[in-house]
Amino acid sequence: MPSPLRNGDLRSPAAVLRQIPFQSTVSEQKLRRLNILILILRFAAFCFSLAAAVFMASNSSRSHDSHSWLHFPTFRYVLAANSIVAVYSLFEICAAVWEILKSETLLPESVQLWFDFSHDQVFAYMLLSAEAVGTGEARRLRGGGACDASGGFCVQAYISVALGFSGFAFLALSGLLSGFRVACFVITGSRFHL
Amino acid sequence: MPSPLRNGDLRSPAAVLRQIPFQSTVSEQKLRRLNILILILRFAAFCFSLAAAVFMASNSSRSHDSHSWLHFPTFRYVLAANSIVAVYSLFEICAAVWEILKSETLLPESVQLWFDFSHDQVFAYMLLSAEAVGTGEARRLRGGGACDASGGFCVQAYISVALGFSGFAFLALSGLLSGFRVACFVITGSRFHL
Repeated sequence: MPSPLRNGDLRSPAAVLRQIPFQSTVSEQKLRRLNILILILRFAAFCFSLAAAVFMASNSSRSHDSHSWLHFPTFRYVLAANSIVAVYSLFEICAAVWEILKSETLLPESVQLWFDFSHDQVFAYMLLSAEAVGTGEARRLRGGGACDASGGFCVQAYISVALGFSGFAFLALSGLLSGFRVACFVITGSRFHL
Repeated sequence: MPSPLRNGDLRSPAAVLRQIPFQSTVSEQKLRRLNILILILRFAAFCFSLAAAVFMASNSSRSHDSHSWLHFPTFRYVLAANSIVAVYSLFEICAAVWEILKSETLLPESVQLWFDFSHDQVFAYMLLSAEAVGTGEARRLRGGGACDASGGFCVQAYISVALGFSGFAFLALSGLLSGFRVACFVITGSRFHL
């Protein structure tokens, strides 16, 4: 069904003006809700990626063979990717809180929208690839029998990878919303069309 | 002297109506160009993922240690992911050709748009994770000295993974365009707003 807004050119100017106050109140409420949803997703991505980074960084076996994440390039990649996503999410949380409080974006609107979308996409792909190779490495360690001597190391690596996958899921959802905002901006000239 | 074109709102309704066929012709041309761009991206994704699948499937060393992709779960995953993307891209090529020829979507419009977008996203993530673990496995083989005896096997695995990454890039670009189409449909009720 076509939106009634598409027939705007058939309405009289007075009718258009009468609609504006009502629409803007409803729109503001929806806009606020969407901003809060984005904030929640960012916060979840931050928590999970930070937890994944901490779990991986503290993952050193205390037994005689002394496994450590430092000896595995893939686990170093997992730690780096999760740390980058945690820092980025923290910045985005600040930007989202600023937007909710001040009703305007931290950076100029178009810059902020394209920045959010491009970084969400790139970091989501980076985090997914890190978790994928991390899973491969953890499976290989278990298959090679390395987990028998130092079970704690393998379990902690698995937990870190699982937390990283959760962080990726929330980041990908944020990416969908920021993509929608960019498309709104390109099509209508406003970052929200609700 | 002001240009007569700037006083557009003073034109008679007949003059406005005379403009409409011209505008819709321009839109149709742009729509056609966008459809052709999508078709090219689909075709590139199909070629690269098919080539990656063929390279991986034919990757069996003929030397005495008889390496084969079948012995590596990660390479089996690479082959499966590339095959799935090749089949999906072939279907999408047919859908795009149909849309260009008939000016309507193969499935009902909203179903087609959401189908394209969701599958682009999911398959892009799947292909990226497959290529990431494939890269990890190939690096591990080289590090373990397995490539010295059967260099051809490793080189072919690397080529397959590189082709798969190219396929992923084109699939991700298609995903951006199909995401834009979905957003257009949600916002304006039409799959193209040009």
